[in-house]
Amino acid sequence: MAMDRKVILYISMSLDGYIATKDNSLDFLSIVEQEGEDYGYIDFVKSVDTVIIGRKTYEKVIEMGYEYPHKDKDVYIVTRTTKPSIGNFKFYTGELTQLVNSLKNQSGKYIYCDGGAEIVNELIINDLVDEYIISVIPILLGDGIKLFKDGRPEQKLELVSAKQFDKGLTQLHYKLADK
Amino acid sequence: MAMDRKVILYISMSLDGYIATKDNSLDFLSIVEQEGEDYGYIDFVKSVDTVIIGRKTYEKVIEMGYEYPHKDKDVYIVTRTTKPSIGNFKFYTGELTQLVNSLKNQSGKYIYCDGGAEIVNELIINDLVDEYIISVIPILLGDGIKLFKDGRPEQKLELVSAKQFDKGLTQLHYKLADK
Repeated sequence: MAMDRKVILYISMSLDGYIATKDNSLDFLSIVEQEGEDYGYIDFVKSVDTVIIGRKTYEKVIEMGYEYPHKDKDVYIVTRTTKPSIGNFKFYTGELTQLVNSLKNQSGKYIYCDGGAEIVNELIINDLVDEYIISVIPILLGDGIKLFKDGRPEQKLELVSAKQFDKGLTQLHYKLADK
Repeated sequence: MAMDRKVILYISMSLDGYIATKDNSLDFLSIVEQEGEDYGYIDFVKSVDTVIIGRKTYEKVIEMGYEYPHKDKDVYIVTRTTKPSIGNFKFYTGELTQLVNSLKNQSGKYIYCDGGAEIVNELIINDLVDEYIISVIPILLGDGIKLFKDGRPEQKLELVSAKQFDKGLTQLHYKLADK
């Protein structure tokens, strides 16, 4: 059964709720960098077999000279333009809601949404995120791209854990209260 | 010396950053109510001798049939209309920045800002808040009055503590990194 196949948002935000600055910089994440501390990322990634990412965010990684990771997973790059798959990286041009519902009806491990802001917002607004793992960075950015935009449905949450780390990062893990 | 006389913001917000719904309701706070648990409020209030509150928020308390607490403290009700003081409750019609700077130059205990959103935002935007004690309520309200509005200066923070409570409230305590 696929009833426990969840969509997890694993993301960092500043205390004032921004996931990036207005010009899409993530430089503020450097204040919590610490050798040997991955804030649970590798363990989290092991629990995942499917990744959903927006086309712009995917291309930004490539443009920065990186290979997109997660080669061992099913990766759906959400885009408006059809392109041939690259290995198990598929370019998906359909409805995000349909993709997620279809994935949730298949058996498998967790589904990880790797951004960007547009895809994240569409998942949240359509009530498709099952768990939030939010790393709160000790900074007020003052302005930028909000994780949570106005005009979403109300959702009660259940706190799974709150973890405090040396560099001042706090990782808040919630699941939807009804699920 | 008054160098350690700090302005503390002790406030609750939903995970998505709202301090109240659009129609000013705080009903969502009831999900963390627990007998015998005050989330450190009484201890915090003991560290304070001065309270700053906006006129609208002050009147809302009165209209709800409560007496405004903090009778043992200097209370500044920030308003545009001059009114005679009531005991140690003073109606303050001047500049908020001037009030805070003048209070910081006097010796005393901590200064507590008790809201509302307008006063809080003016303090934050003018870099007058020294410590943030934010109780994160396990709910996404979806919409409402934001604690942090766009267009503030960037401020690096230092995490003092992160405390997790039974009802899913997480209390994050920060101070400005430079202070």
